[in-house]
Amino acid sequence: MRKIKIIIEYDGTNYHGWQVQKNAKTVQETVQKAISKLLGEGVGVTGCSRTDVGVHAYGQVAHFLTDSQIPGDKFSYAINNLLPDDIVIKHSEEVSEEFHARYSTKGKKYRYLIYNAPHPSAIMRNRSCHVRPVLDIEQMKKAARYFIGEHDFAAFQATGGQVRSTVREIYSMEVSGKEDNMIYIEVSGNGFLYNMVRIIAGTLIYVGMGKLQESEIPGIIAGLDRTKSGKTAPAQGLYLMEIYY
Amino acid sequence: MRKIKIIIEYDGTNYHGWQVQKNAKTVQETVQKAISKLLGEGVGVTGCSRTDVGVHAYGQVAHFLTDSQIPGDKFSYAINNLLPDDIVIKHSEEVSEEFHARYSTKGKKYRYLIYNAPHPSAIMRNRSCHVRPVLDIEQMKKAARYFIGEHDFAAFQATGGQVRSTVREIYSMEVSGKEDNMIYIEVSGNGFLYNMVRIIAGTLIYVGMGKLQESEIPGIIAGLDRTKSGKTAPAQGLYLMEIYY
Repeated sequence: MRKIKIIIEYDGTNYHGWQVQKNAKTVQETVQKAISKLLGEGVGVTGCSRTDVGVHAYGQVAHFLTDSQIPGDKFSYAINNLLPDDIVIKHSEEVSEEFHARYSTKGKKYRYLIYNAPHPSAIMRNRSCHVRPVLDIEQMKKAARYFIGEHDFAAFQATGGQVRSTVREIYSMEVSGKEDNMIYIEVSGNGFLYNMVRIIAGTLIYVGMGKLQESEIPGIIAGLDRTKSGKTAPAQGLYLMEIYY
Repeated sequence: MRKIKIIIEYDGTNYHGWQVQKNAKTVQETVQKAISKLLGEGVGVTGCSRTDVGVHAYGQVAHFLTDSQIPGDKFSYAINNLLPDDIVIKHSEEVSEEFHARYSTKGKKYRYLIYNAPHPSAIMRNRSCHVRPVLDIEQMKKAARYFIGEHDFAAFQATGGQVRSTVREIYSMEVSGKEDNMIYIEVSGNGFLYNMVRIIAGTLIYVGMGKLQESEIPGIIAGLDRTKSGKTAPAQGLYLMEIYY
């Protein structure tokens, strides 16, 4: 059997997240059906990241096994012909047997998009989080720096998380004001707890609004208490940008 | 009667353009219905620009007359409550009797968005024009300069245009490569012929692909011949950004 790695972009608006589930259309199921149709056999697709309902991806990664003789780089074109236009295979290649979309991961990069204006955006309504009060981006930038490095991020995990360790390393975190009233938060790290990026985004929004001071962030991280960090920012502002191997 | 000016943002994907027409949902009709419902009387809304099917707006401008006592700046909030979320009133104010959304215009600004990548974009599919070959942005920037100033733009008007004069002045035109494989063309001028921005965009795409040389642009403008300029680029890449008064 050959192993094929694919990189997937999707608009999460019309899907119940990545993972296959009963009675709801998901990205994984849609991709599996397209590949199965292409190859004329049932194919299981293993994805890296279980993105939630409404979350977008520029760089989800998955793999599947096949005996097909299609060249590795041609799968993207062939599968795209069978996918709806809100899911696109951006890249495909044959990889070694050892590669695993989830277990070979070295890190991930996310983006969180905030639309900061008095009224919501018609054009970016499903692709960003609307925040009405004018945010102080300089304070958000200062706050972001405290997250970089290895920390126990227990205060930034959805309650009920069941992982063995809540220690993660954040490699970089950047807040930048862009045109059209957009604020980008870009964060990369070796791994992320459940809802971690959305809770960090919600915390930075509180700093931007002045509900929290940037100087309070180290204490919030050290306190390991989810009730002290900000609200979980909504799913539609979150983008899985890239997965490192 | 009071006159109210509104600035409207819309995602053109699900509308048959701005202008009211039979048997098709349009932005003008949707806005008129919302305002009429708010005020409890039939209200006609006069817009500045008849955007085509699929074209987006960050800054369409319109006006309407009313005897209502709602403060000018509060109309936006009240109307938004009655609009679908792909149309947003960004601003409202009371203006003098002399103001006219179409006839008082001094100029307009448009943006054209190109997604330049081997595969189409799932996330930006209805919001940009996909171009597969790698575009030479430097050549496009050089070509863009020739359009600036007052010219007869007959070569950049959809065939069948019925205006008295095809002379227009372009104030500025800028091509810039952005993140996520996006190329922005931003152009402002005192007025635009039918499909003019989309034909300019199509011509710049040809320059980027090497199908036209940047040095050919002055001759194409001077030739006044629509068959010598590029193809009309698709509607979904076009944004009406701002209208000057």
